[in-house]
Amino acid sequence: SNDVKEYENYFGMTLLDRRSDKRTDSKWLSKKQRHPDTVYILFSNLSPLVTLDRGRGSSQQTEVKLCRLCHKDVEQCLNQTEECTLIFLGVELQFGVNLMAASHGRLLQDEEDGLVAWFALSIDCASAEKFKQKHEGCYFLHPPMPALLQLPEKEAGVIAQARSVLAWHNYYRFCPTCGSATRIEEGGYKKTCLKEDCPSLQGVHNTSYPRVDPVVIMQVIHPDGNHCLLGRQKRFPPGMFTCLAGFVEPGETINDAVRREVEEEAGVKVSHVQYVSCQPWPMPSSLMIGCLAFAVSTEIKVDKNEIEDARWFTREQVVEVLIKGNQRSFFVPPSQAIAHQLIKHWIGMTANL
Amino acid sequence: SNDVKEYENYFGMTLLDRRSDKRTDSKWLSKKQRHPDTVYILFSNLSPLVTLDRGRGSSQQTEVKLCRLCHKDVEQCLNQTEECTLIFLGVELQFGVNLMAASHGRLLQDEEDGLVAWFALSIDCASAEKFKQKHEGCYFLHPPMPALLQLPEKEAGVIAQARSVLAWHNYYRFCPTCGSATRIEEGGYKKTCLKEDCPSLQGVHNTSYPRVDPVVIMQVIHPDGNHCLLGRQKRFPPGMFTCLAGFVEPGETINDAVRREVEEEAGVKVSHVQYVSCQPWPMPSSLMIGCLAFAVSTEIKVDKNEIEDARWFTREQVVEVLIKGNQRSFFVPPSQAIAHQLIKHWIGMTANL
Ligand SMILES: Nc1ncnc2c1ncn2[C@@H]1O[C@H](COP(=O)(O)O)[C@@H](O)[C@H]1O
Ligand SMILES: Nc1ncnc2c1ncn2[C@@H]1O[C@H](COP(=O)(O)O)[C@@H](O)[C@H]1O
Repeated sequence: SNDVKEYENYFGMTLLDRRSDKRTDSKWLSKKQRHPDTVYILFSNLSPLVTLDRGRGSSQQTEVKLCRLCHKDVEQCLNQTEECTLIFLGVELQFGVNLMAASHGRLLQDEEDGLVAWFALSIDCASAEKFKQKHEGCYFLHPPMPALLQLPEKEAGVIAQARSVLAWHNYYRFCPTCGSATRIEEGGYKKTCLKEDCPSLQGVHNTSYPRVDPVVIMQVIHPDGNHCLLGRQKRFPPGMFTCLAGFVEPGETINDAVRREVEEEAGVKVSHVQYVSCQPWPMPSSLMIGCLAFAVSTEIKVDKNEIEDARWFTREQVVEVLIKGNQRSFFVPPSQAIAHQLIKHWIGMTANL
Repeated sequence: SNDVKEYENYFGMTLLDRRSDKRTDSKWLSKKQRHPDTVYILFSNLSPLVTLDRGRGSSQQTEVKLCRLCHKDVEQCLNQTEECTLIFLGVELQFGVNLMAASHGRLLQDEEDGLVAWFALSIDCASAEKFKQKHEGCYFLHPPMPALLQLPEKEAGVIAQARSVLAWHNYYRFCPTCGSATRIEEGGYKKTCLKEDCPSLQGVHNTSYPRVDPVVIMQVIHPDGNHCLLGRQKRFPPGMFTCLAGFVEPGETINDAVRREVEEEAGVKVSHVQYVSCQPWPMPSSLMIGCLAFAVSTEIKVDKNEIEDARWFTREQVVEVLIKGNQRSFFVPPSQAIAHQLIKHWIGMTANL
């Protein structure tokens, strides 16, 4: 098939409905904050608090899982420090039940609506230390990459959302228009300048909203249809090659960004570009846009400022590594990365020819 | 055909090669700044300086065009004020000639490389006034929308790039991490905090780079395949309906953003989503990601906070308006907007059924 299955989208699957309509409902939010069923996930330094799950059933494999805390666990943090940031993430998807309960909740405002709310809470280092001591077996997943890739798929989607928004608060504390302090609003999805006559308060500006950085990532296909172009950066583990990628620039189409990046990094010219699929990538807040790129030149000129190496690999070489797991000569990123899925997609395509 | 032709992409076609490699070549940049062939385009308040072209040939239609100024015209502005921001846009595409000249230029550093560089210059209101007086027939295109849509297609692409980057400098003057002043670098594509121990200087952060906001825009197709969902906002001209749209949130896939926005704005449920094409939209710096969205429910519940109205239109109604130009009942955005192209794409698809 020519379709990338959506369930293969790590960081793109979630167990939450964002319910953005609730972000401005401060009464509902504060009620949910104190509700015993509400789930809190904790972050320190943009790393989530996790625990090892012994794994039921036959496999008995230990699994990394998010620590799901309740209001009682975090009450002290919530009251205490300025250094703590709270984000409303959404409510648990309940497949059918959800919709009815939600409209019921709208009718009877003071009744229980049955929705299980999730919040992300970012705490300072001192509180984080205390937390680890109190909750045995819990630890902050650090450094985030590749550790985050161990999470169950649906929790990864929650992390993608939470980490991106928290990173925005971490690095965008002050109003970029005037340099003043700001106030967090709308469940963590808005930030308003506190200076009365700041130009950012006239009209709607993106300074108030979290950033999402579109990145193109492309499987470049040789004119012969039987080779693909993979490259590596210096900071990669030895032997790893992957798809080329780069940030979309202002005023640029996806197709032109693909052509520019491939030419800049590897000196290869691309004509036709075809969108395949996308993936949120919370490092800190990218939207990876995966494409096939059809090359019309073959000579490689590596720009050493951008990448360390780029080579044409045959279909057979890639099949060896990806399907047969023979990683002697080189290897590619794990299946959780869109690069892996793009390469696999190309192999699937050519297998059908 | 199922492909949206790329030449139909207003704001997505340009006459420039960005040559990002030159952004760090300050010697080359300053030489080009003073070169007599170099083209400057001027902005005041994010509006470009344009002129009316009487139009040669038989049609004799007057056309709005960018004023292409030279170093002599802008010398005074460049030297004088702090309020002036200079962006390197790229060099003119020369189709074949370009490549040779470029490599020639690399070999003989001090020789002419033959490349025609373009810069965007943003000036303050006082300088703008002076400019209009000195250059008869020139004026700043204000308000930008829908006026920008009058530009020739390839100049629109230059504006998309320049306006987005200038808007970033306009609204991101201070370091969002610490509130300090910043310095512009790399031809206008980077901004560095001036405070020595600012955390934004440790590692690479998006605070240093221009913002691009991904937006999904979708032609929602009725389960019967014969109706599409169009909506309108209060601020639209009376009678105009268009595709639904909304910002992609952190940690969200394109498909999920489409589903969330359609459900939020119109209460309609979408299952399958298919990417069609994209368009840069410099208001101020969006990347419009155009999709088809296949609805699985039909009842419309308009969220009045987001839109004013949403309705199912039949294929025949849309053909009347789009192809036959019969705009009595309603109308859609002009052909320069991706919404127009998406609607047209859908009509083309269903015509082929
Ligand atoms: N990056 C962003 N820039 C502007 N508005 C945003 C952004 N992200 C979310 N929004 C929200 O989208 C609304 C504007 O949407 P629109 O009417 O489509 O221009 C604003 O009122 C904000 O609530
Ligand atoms: N939004 C952005 N965030 C981070 N880096 C960016 C951004 N836009 C452009 N860049 C550039 O991309 C480089 C990092 O690219 P990468 O190695 O793919 O992470 C940085 O060194 C910057 O020069």
